[in-house]
Amino acid sequence: MSVIEQARRARTAAGVLATATRTVKDAGLHAMADALVARTPEILTANEADLAAGRAAGLSPAILDRLALTAERVAGIAEALREMAALADPVGEVVRGSTLPNGLELRQIRVPFGVVGIIYEARPNVTVDAAGICLKSGNAALLRGSSSAAHSNAALVGVLRDAVAGAGLPADAIQLLDASSRDSVKQLMRARGLVDVLIPRGGASLIRTVVEESTVPVIETGVGNCHVYVDAAADVAKAIDIVLNSKTQRLSTCNTAESLLVHAEIADVFLPPMLAAFVAAGVTVHGDDRVRAYSAAVVAATEEDYGTEYLAAEISAAVVDSLDVAVGHIQRYGTQHTEAIVTDSASAAREFVARVDSAAVMVNASTRFTDGGEFGFGAEIGISTQKLHARGPMGLPELTSTKYVVTGDGHLRG
Amino acid sequence: MSVIEQARRARTAAGVLATATRTVKDAGLHAMADALVARTPEILTANEADLAAGRAAGLSPAILDRLALTAERVAGIAEALREMAALADPVGEVVRGSTLPNGLELRQIRVPFGVVGIIYEARPNVTVDAAGICLKSGNAALLRGSSSAAHSNAALVGVLRDAVAGAGLPADAIQLLDASSRDSVKQLMRARGLVDVLIPRGGASLIRTVVEESTVPVIETGVGNCHVYVDAAADVAKAIDIVLNSKTQRLSTCNTAESLLVHAEIADVFLPPMLAAFVAAGVTVHGDDRVRAYSAAVVAATEEDYGTEYLAAEISAAVVDSLDVAVGHIQRYGTQHTEAIVTDSASAAREFVARVDSAAVMVNASTRFTDGGEFGFGAEIGISTQKLHARGPMGLPELTSTKYVVTGDGHLRG
Repeated sequence: MSVIEQARRARTAAGVLATATRTVKDAGLHAMADALVARTPEILTANEADLAAGRAAGLSPAILDRLALTAERVAGIAEALREMAALADPVGEVVRGSTLPNGLELRQIRVPFGVVGIIYEARPNVTVDAAGICLKSGNAALLRGSSSAAHSNAALVGVLRDAVAGAGLPADAIQLLDASSRDSVKQLMRARGLVDVLIPRGGASLIRTVVEESTVPVIETGVGNCHVYVDAAADVAKAIDIVLNSKTQRLSTCNTAESLLVHAEIADVFLPPMLAAFVAAGVTVHGDDRVRAYSAAVVAATEEDYGTEYLAAEISAAVVDSLDVAVGHIQRYGTQHTEAIVTDSASAAREFVARVDSAAVMVNASTRFTDGGEFGFGAEIGISTQKLHARGPMGLPELTSTKYVVTGDGHLRG
Repeated sequence: MSVIEQARRARTAAGVLATATRTVKDAGLHAMADALVARTPEILTANEADLAAGRAAGLSPAILDRLALTAERVAGIAEALREMAALADPVGEVVRGSTLPNGLELRQIRVPFGVVGIIYEARPNVTVDAAGICLKSGNAALLRGSSSAAHSNAALVGVLRDAVAGAGLPADAIQLLDASSRDSVKQLMRARGLVDVLIPRGGASLIRTVVEESTVPVIETGVGNCHVYVDAAADVAKAIDIVLNSKTQRLSTCNTAESLLVHAEIADVFLPPMLAAFVAAGVTVHGDDRVRAYSAAVVAATEEDYGTEYLAAEISAAVVDSLDVAVGHIQRYGTQHTEAIVTDSASAAREFVARVDSAAVMVNASTRFTDGGEFGFGAEIGISTQKLHARGPMGLPELTSTKYVVTGDGHLRG
């Protein structure tokens, strides 16, 4: 079936989902969870086919691990759907409302987008998560996963479609697109009018392609060249802990710190123990001459290093003469994802927060906290690094639009 | 100067505007208003040059009237800036906030977009309105007006830039782009990273071009093929008044009704007086056979008529057998701007509101009420017909994004 035909079916399904009650949608989520658990054997068989193909293709152990499903992982994915069912329904929320001077009753009400396209890589759990978040928010989902997970995704989507149909909702609310060629991505990007929003999740090049070529509105996610700025007035012990946690708590996530900026006035006391801690943690530091003066272990940073999202045990570093220089550096090299300041100075914190133009600004906290789960959203479809519509971690409300409902009794405009 | 260079300057100005206090921004708006009044003669001289060129080029009297400025009109435009100053500042509003279980303080705060590009036609008052709304919301404005208003716009922007500079704000917060070629539009559409959002205001073809070609995120505005559905349970007198007001109160606006759908059960009592009222009002009706059966004055509707935004004293009309058919017709031909139902049936109203997927749905009220002024927003930059970010009339908050500020005291992720 063509992507356009799939999008048309999604549109029809979206019409049903838009008026489905929370009770019905939550029953669908529970049915999905139950079916995943009940049909785990066939899911694992399909997953084994992907793993075998991946091994034959020489995929790295890390990628194979991300791809791998176990009964325990499937149970965890199912549990996430049950937790989604417990979240409040964003649809129907009255965002604002008033009675106008002429007596007209004005209400702005949350409604689903309609059809949401999601393009993603590797992990098959994203297939289920995305389908669940879309269903909960009343949207039909067009899922375009990775070809390396094609068998797993087909099995998962088959199970989910049967489950929602069994719960009285249209199976076409959840559809998998062909992952065998780039053509399905191209068609999805041109399906304006049928698809309401496109969310690319994955590497920088995928996101850039979608942003540049899509006529469907896009929510850009994920690329994070996150900075930690250690201010002159920082507590040294806290600063070391925050930098280490931001860099090493998990290396491969978009909210991991990739660059360290240190105020010149605190460099003498902060950098020697910080650089020693990096060595102990196995992190390679790419520093400027001023950083390198403190340790022979520091590699010379190139211009390119400051713009790099390593997603690895590497970090760029520079000494700056002021908060102003730090802000300028972040403006130049950052991706407007997450930046942190470590400082005991209230005025420095205030200035940093006001001037740094990022989705999230941390004060004396790890960059790793930029996360829908950590923020208490319960479900997350990605982290937006654009300013339009959604910025930062996107939960259920970010997958909705609104509609004005205006009620009168024969009201005419004068 | 190239558009890219102008965008760079706008970006720098946006950095200043983002942290400007309301007091400073409002002083800028008052300075702009005062300067417009004080320098009215030079504005009118420039406007006269546009009018002369327009007359020579054979522009219609209606377009010339829209282009024309008078001392009174300039005073009105200035007054609108003073009213903007009186509105609440959207920037800094805490949209949501909580203390997370680990003690982190989470706040989501409204921040300006940064640089807003606006592409528009004809009326020079839009130049001032857009500049004012952008300044109030902390955004730098890149204004690309019509070549027919080039002299007027240059004079107005010159006055506004002097005024904001006099108020201590960067003159580059307000810049006019070259209107003599399409090249400035093209450059603006490709200035992703420098321009945060593009708002095209004008005809359908301009908007389509921008939507399809822009890599800068776009907010689609304005095209309205608005429907009034007269339900079986409608009050006939109210229905006639609402349809007439929706169609004729002003012909050239996007919230004007362009299509009438009548339930078969009420056609016999409703259509004869309605069609007579249309004749009396000079409105040509393009109807299907069932409508034409009631009056010889009704012209046969083509398929194309149902998809046409006339912006003139014309309306398409059809008799439908049910609310369901009406909703289907609207889905097929509508532009998701504004649709109205006239009915005394609470359940019909409820179903229409739930199923019609438009920016605004009116119950027993004229479609003409979809308007920032009527909704009490105080200022309006356009009416969005897309679902992403803003839908319906856009006021000051719709010209902002948000930023998460997370404050801890050495918080690490476990």
